[in-house]
Amino acid sequence: MRVAVLPGDGIGPEITREAVNLLEEIVRLFQRNIEIQYGQIGGAAIDEEGTPLPKATLQLCRTSDAVLLGAVGGPKWDGQPGHLRPEAGLLALRKELGLYANLRPITVFAGLEGASPLKGELLQDVDMVIVRELTGGLYFGTPKERRRSGQEWEAVDTLHYTEAEIERILRLGFEMARQRRRLLTSVDKANVLETSRLWRETAERLALEYPDVTLNHLLVDNAAMQLIKCPSRFDVIVTENMFGDILSDEAAMITGSIGMLPSASLSETGPGLYEPIHGSAPDIAGQNKANPLAMFLSVAMMLRQTAGWAREADAIQSAIESVLAEGWRTEDLGEPGTARLTTSEMGAKV
Amino acid sequence: MRVAVLPGDGIGPEITREAVNLLEEIVRLFQRNIEIQYGQIGGAAIDEEGTPLPKATLQLCRTSDAVLLGAVGGPKWDGQPGHLRPEAGLLALRKELGLYANLRPITVFAGLEGASPLKGELLQDVDMVIVRELTGGLYFGTPKERRRSGQEWEAVDTLHYTEAEIERILRLGFEMARQRRRLLTSVDKANVLETSRLWRETAERLALEYPDVTLNHLLVDNAAMQLIKCPSRFDVIVTENMFGDILSDEAAMITGSIGMLPSASLSETGPGLYEPIHGSAPDIAGQNKANPLAMFLSVAMMLRQTAGWAREADAIQSAIESVLAEGWRTEDLGEPGTARLTTSEMGAKV
Ligand SMILES: CC(C)[C@H](C(=O)O)[C@@H](O)C(=O)O
Ligand SMILES: CC(C)[C@H](C(=O)O)[C@@H](O)C(=O)O
Repeated sequence: MRVAVLPGDGIGPEITREAVNLLEEIVRLFQRNIEIQYGQIGGAAIDEEGTPLPKATLQLCRTSDAVLLGAVGGPKWDGQPGHLRPEAGLLALRKELGLYANLRPITVFAGLEGASPLKGELLQDVDMVIVRELTGGLYFGTPKERRRSGQEWEAVDTLHYTEAEIERILRLGFEMARQRRRLLTSVDKANVLETSRLWRETAERLALEYPDVTLNHLLVDNAAMQLIKCPSRFDVIVTENMFGDILSDEAAMITGSIGMLPSASLSETGPGLYEPIHGSAPDIAGQNKANPLAMFLSVAMMLRQTAGWAREADAIQSAIESVLAEGWRTEDLGEPGTARLTTSEMGAKV
Repeated sequence: MRVAVLPGDGIGPEITREAVNLLEEIVRLFQRNIEIQYGQIGGAAIDEEGTPLPKATLQLCRTSDAVLLGAVGGPKWDGQPGHLRPEAGLLALRKELGLYANLRPITVFAGLEGASPLKGELLQDVDMVIVRELTGGLYFGTPKERRRSGQEWEAVDTLHYTEAEIERILRLGFEMARQRRRLLTSVDKANVLETSRLWRETAERLALEYPDVTLNHLLVDNAAMQLIKCPSRFDVIVTENMFGDILSDEAAMITGSIGMLPSASLSETGPGLYEPIHGSAPDIAGQNKANPLAMFLSVAMMLRQTAGWAREADAIQSAIESVLAEGWRTEDLGEPGTARLTTSEMGAKV
């Protein structure tokens, strides 16, 4: 397997270093052939090459089987115009690779319940996947610009979806629900948005093809409430790009495991991209403090989904579970009885 | 004071009936002159007049000092085209009256902490106001339509803001922060949206005029996390229409007091609109079960803000606090020692 590794910004390089060690361990233990090549993205790429997604990086990703990404962004580049921000590199990569589906499994890790802001009883049986549309909607619609209107400025972003884009992501939601508890919650704002009304109708139409899956609709404001009120009621949630951005971060925080959650971004035929859902955490960058476990779980997802190596993925997951069960923690995870590990110490333990 | 009373749909009429009783009690106790006139809105108006905002209702509101609204919406009208939905009536009313600022105070009521999904210690000192822009953004931008693109449908909504719209709401945020703990959190998605970049720059510019207020920026996905992680850190949150819709419902749920929270929607010079933040709850409509307290607190807000009657508003608030302290609850409020009151019983108690 050829893996394009993009460390990015902030804590990205630190956690990526540990992930590469982990991949090397997989190679050694399971006699696998994994070829790693590095590329630049985000702020690091802006600093060195003047663009957040250099052509060479895109080319590298296109010719790889999978992309492993650390994180992008930081205050250093905040003053830049839109196209010269770190995030623009990630957005362009998603678009160029056609990564239309962002999958975020939301689970609570045994022993980490205490880190959740929610009452313990609400965490029982929390096990959902958020399926977020990733290449449409407000992120990419045009016009997306600032313009002069008489004496003053105005700005516009465009929420645009074709029926085909909506159908593609909803279908993935139905398929995933079928492999799980057969409950699909489609989130929209159909009482206000035209795109949401097309979304909801498309979901209703597809539901006829999936009679074994129960489809529910929730308005996004209500979904933001229900996620807190009763997170265990959800199995698969499918939603558009911006709603997915907001709700998946909310759901992640609820578990108390925000430093533990991986994600996969998939295209129809090309390489998938794997990254932790946490950000670049500039405040702790370079301090060897960051929790590498979400990155490790992203590696596990990559091995399972792209390479089909279930044994290797399981090995990573159970290693992480053992380390947690023994009481080892990085600083972000709060409580336990034992000492706090640095990024590299946690990497070595796993 | 002339009040236009719009009961609306679902539990709207039940809680409005109690609110009118309450207003009559205020008239009696404080020798005030309050003139009440009823208007139709939402699904009820669609059924009787074929439109969710009849001209007569709009005219009534325009010539009143304040508008008191129950709730709109319900599954009965879900199949309708956009302009024939109950919500379209509320949206049109907001636009026509220029109600650009939606204020949602988020507090935890003594004795109701147990109803919160959050751990008790996180609820201490939670006291914020969400200032939501209400007449711009995705709700009203055009084009907002479905159209044919070759063989398939596509749909578009438009997120549009002028600098003046942004400045107006931000300024209100700064002013409110000044009257409170002097901390303003502006929520946007400046790493992706042009409208958010204009928003953030405008906030930075205004901050120079308010050196006594501390301004923070949060990305909306991060805000959705921080609201759960540490709700007490917020004082005033100001944000655009759709983000405000999502975050204010999330914040309300966190307190466990969702049936207790009022809102005010204000214009530059015309009448304000007061309504509970909960919805029309069609599942319990007509059962005399709904909690009227958010509606009562909306009445208190109306008396305070529109009429300037602080004593009357205080009287309502302390009546509610006493009733809760005595252990009286409606069904939604969970736990306590005493019997559950119906809507009308709770109304009578207060
Ligand atoms: C970095 C940012 C552009 C990105 C997004 O909004 O999609 C991030 O928040 C995410 O969720 O992956
Ligand atoms: C009913 C609906 C159109 C409305 C909104 O989205 O603004 C409601 O959710 C609210 O928050 O007042």
